[in-house]
Amino acid sequence: MSIETVAIAGAGIIGASWAIVYARSGLRVAIFDHNAEGRATLPQRIADAVAVSDALLRPGETVAVVTGRITIHETLADAVAGADFVHECIVEKIESKVAIFAELDQLAEPQAILATTTSSFPVSKFAADLACRDRCIVVHPATPPHLLPVTEICPAPFTRADVTDETFRFMEACGQTPVRIKREIPSFVLNRMQAALVVEMFRCLNEDLISAEDIDKIISQGFGLRWAFLGPFEGVDLNAKGGIAQYLENFGFLFNEMANELGFDDVVTPRSIAALDDYARRKIPLDALQDKVAWRDRSIVALRRLKDERGTADRG
Amino acid sequence: MSIETVAIAGAGIIGASWAIVYARSGLRVAIFDHNAEGRATLPQRIADAVAVSDALLRPGETVAVVTGRITIHETLADAVAGADFVHECIVEKIESKVAIFAELDQLAEPQAILATTTSSFPVSKFAADLACRDRCIVVHPATPPHLLPVTEICPAPFTRADVTDETFRFMEACGQTPVRIKREIPSFVLNRMQAALVVEMFRCLNEDLISAEDIDKIISQGFGLRWAFLGPFEGVDLNAKGGIAQYLENFGFLFNEMANELGFDDVVTPRSIAALDDYARRKIPLDALQDKVAWRDRSIVALRRLKDERGTADRG
Repeated sequence: MSIETVAIAGAGIIGASWAIVYARSGLRVAIFDHNAEGRATLPQRIADAVAVSDALLRPGETVAVVTGRITIHETLADAVAGADFVHECIVEKIESKVAIFAELDQLAEPQAILATTTSSFPVSKFAADLACRDRCIVVHPATPPHLLPVTEICPAPFTRADVTDETFRFMEACGQTPVRIKREIPSFVLNRMQAALVVEMFRCLNEDLISAEDIDKIISQGFGLRWAFLGPFEGVDLNAKGGIAQYLENFGFLFNEMANELGFDDVVTPRSIAALDDYARRKIPLDALQDKVAWRDRSIVALRRLKDERGTADRG
Repeated sequence: MSIETVAIAGAGIIGASWAIVYARSGLRVAIFDHNAEGRATLPQRIADAVAVSDALLRPGETVAVVTGRITIHETLADAVAGADFVHECIVEKIESKVAIFAELDQLAEPQAILATTTSSFPVSKFAADLACRDRCIVVHPATPPHLLPVTEICPAPFTRADVTDETFRFMEACGQTPVRIKREIPSFVLNRMQAALVVEMFRCLNEDLISAEDIDKIISQGFGLRWAFLGPFEGVDLNAKGGIAQYLENFGFLFNEMANELGFDDVVTPRSIAALDDYARRKIPLDALQDKVAWRDRSIVALRRLKDERGTADRG
């Protein structure tokens, strides 16, 4: 299979953003919205967003070239005709997902991959009884996908393996960073991780330990500078000469104390340490850790300079 | 009070990093360590770290000029003589804090601010009975402080207000971003926020929902790109035309669902919404939100280009 044409159902913020991801990768994009105002405002919204992010265009491409690959359609049937990959981006209601996937079952090309950008509903909740079900898959991004690469891929148990594999290859070809959700759970992982941090921020605010502004600074003037380059596990790996395994052997109890305070069992266990050691050591050998520390530090310095250059929109 | 000379007790990773913060701000720094090996390796460790981060030096300054401001001492008495600000950075054990603050009470200049970089212990736990107690204060950074600006400031109830104010001014003058912890709690806020995210990462790993590598990518290829520029509350403020108050009125239930799953009461309440609305609207008026969205988006694009330029240390 080779994906050359994409159809998008729903021209809201996420649908428009996905249209940019696909169009700037050289694909033709047919986008449907039932709402006349949504269709009318779409060209300007997309052109503005492409202009703001034009540094991410391929060499030699212009805003006009990219937006010229996008067509807007008044019917779903028109949009999906000939599409190899259909991305559903409509309202986040289960009854709407049920209805549109029943339509897609009839209207889409018989080999097309049918993706949903849902942030909540596993495929089994709305497509389990459809003939097309083995081509259905969750493709849920961070918002907006044309700026943030990470994208959750969650197949149903009945999704064909080649559909999942092709979706991964396709996302990578489009410059996204797909991650695999191994089984169907409501709301997946990305939003759950963000919510865990935000809930703790609210708790600190509600306990009047610190101001809202200072909570934000802990991220934007602290951890965010590291996490722009390294995930937290990768970061921990740089905190001991023996890597993440040694660090967790020595200091894992601190995370367990926090987990216990939150009412959970220990999270740092021989099993999780072994899994993280395996991940970290496949990624980088122990004798390269010091070079990586220097790389991280230079990266943070470069980001601080970038931030100084950009200032803040509200400096005034 | 004007701080011109700083003494640091403890030449480990954090003590060395604080020495860089102060020396590159033009201050003379006297650093003490009881360990001969710690003293012997310190000049090279500091020189290497300053070289890696030389883009953060003041215009015209060199590694040699900055490191030349730092002297190394074999006794605490030598180091603190004449120092306006003493920063204790020794081992994280309560009995060690008790002992060194008793010494500082005798040895430090009678007007010197006595700061501790402890990540765990409020001042009341180790200095409540000392004559110097009203000059004692927690100054705890993200690690390492010469790269990550955010720094927790936590006075004890008996800390003099002018000591707290002067510490804030001093941190800002040194290019740090001080945040105020309003009352004494063990482990303060910064590590608690990080731990909340990391614990949730472990839970997702332990439930075998997703690989360790993919968990890291959710941050480093997703939220981390936003959080490098904006705290999560600031980010939420950009998600609705009416700002964070409108967003939370509509979607705050999602955070409450997560809070309830974690066993907490609702975190999004009329009171927390009002506090966040007050914070956000003092920072930026509603009619400037769209400009800030464009600023955020351009910032993320610039960061993605920076990341492409820097590659990864383990690209292999």
